[in-house]
Amino acid sequence: MSRQLLSLLALGLLLAVAPLASGDDKDTKKARRTVAVFVHEGVELLDFAGPGEVFAAAEGGRAFKVYTVAATKDPITSQRFLKVTPEFTFAECPKPDILVIPGGNTSVPLKDPKVVEWVKTASADTEVTMSVCTGAFILAKAGLLDGKEATTHWASVERLKKVYPKVTVRGDKRFVDTGKVVTTAGVSAGIDGALHVVKRLLGEQAAKDTARYMEYRWDQEPAGGKATPMTTPGGSR
Amino acid sequence: MSRQLLSLLALGLLLAVAPLASGDDKDTKKARRTVAVFVHEGVELLDFAGPGEVFAAAEGGRAFKVYTVAATKDPITSQRFLKVTPEFTFAECPKPDILVIPGGNTSVPLKDPKVVEWVKTASADTEVTMSVCTGAFILAKAGLLDGKEATTHWASVERLKKVYPKVTVRGDKRFVDTGKVVTTAGVSAGIDGALHVVKRLLGEQAAKDTARYMEYRWDQEPAGGKATPMTTPGGSR
Repeated sequence: MSRQLLSLLALGLLLAVAPLASGDDKDTKKARRTVAVFVHEGVELLDFAGPGEVFAAAEGGRAFKVYTVAATKDPITSQRFLKVTPEFTFAECPKPDILVIPGGNTSVPLKDPKVVEWVKTASADTEVTMSVCTGAFILAKAGLLDGKEATTHWASVERLKKVYPKVTVRGDKRFVDTGKVVTTAGVSAGIDGALHVVKRLLGEQAAKDTARYMEYRWDQEPAGGKATPMTTPGGSR
Repeated sequence: MSRQLLSLLALGLLLAVAPLASGDDKDTKKARRTVAVFVHEGVELLDFAGPGEVFAAAEGGRAFKVYTVAATKDPITSQRFLKVTPEFTFAECPKPDILVIPGGNTSVPLKDPKVVEWVKTASADTEVTMSVCTGAFILAKAGLLDGKEATTHWASVERLKKVYPKVTVRGDKRFVDTGKVVTTAGVSAGIDGALHVVKRLLGEQAAKDTARYMEYRWDQEPAGGKATPMTTPGGSR
């Protein structure tokens, strides 16, 4: 057999096999992690939209499958103006690899035992359960922060310490990563927490690319933890 | 009449008048500026959620009345996962003092002459019309950027220059303020643009307080304009 013929045969074999190797949908789908973003009446907009944007944008949308989940499918209002219809109820929700628990006005979800129970149950199988802002109170109520370090919005640091004395509250940190559980400070700190999770799961370059796409000034290890000195607590949440 | 009696009479008068002075709903409402956030199928989540959060949070929610507006009230999907129901159609929408035009996949709104027409008409009476990211293409199509400086997402700078040669596109700026029209770079830059508008309308302290509430690292005049060196354009929008 001539070399040319051998080359042609090899090329034919390659072309026949290549689509199987690159087009294996099952493998691709398995690699795409699921991200459940919990939404509730009174949820702070950027608390969930920050991490939502990060996970949905990472690797051009190929890395994560993001969806919203709530106690019911009734529309909720975020930030007093945005009407959002949750995609799944707890009962229907696909098993999340990553669970995002935003804050804001958490009085409604904290009073609902279904919420706390679901957060506890779903977190048993997550790679990362992440709270933003006062979402930390939901994790704390579910017992997920007992004996751990955690953070929350600066205006709620003292309250978290008081209500959940088993939690070591770090008011000086922008986010705290204890392995499975990641907690972040207020509102925009959720973006940093999510980029940190992307870095942990997909590597630094993937997180940098996501930040660059979002034109976000990402400081991986913010000096002193907080964005600005938080010396004068003003207002309450 | 004794001094005590005079004091009591004065106090009574004060208590009777005070509620009228502080509770004048008409004046309060007049002072509260309206912010229309345009949403469309495929809108980038943080493009509208960033400014939405800023305006809704400013002065503890008292400074702005924020609402969503779209061509129809049909639910739209943002960032491939968030189902949002617009509050108003163009026809019903209260007159906005501030108009926010986010980007993302703008192919649908750019093809809809109603959108471009409404943006043009509404902008005749706004204090500020602000685009985020590729929302600049909608302002450009409405003729609002002709003869002006403007910016957009770094991956779309060349395209904006090419399609709208009357616009002086500043790829080195995080936001451009030309007076009525403010354009910002991509995604997270909308937060900076909105904080800049809050500063212009309500003063620096109000903007600083909002950034602090959001725990956002606000750089009022970002050095070199961009968050990170944008030397290697990757991907397209």
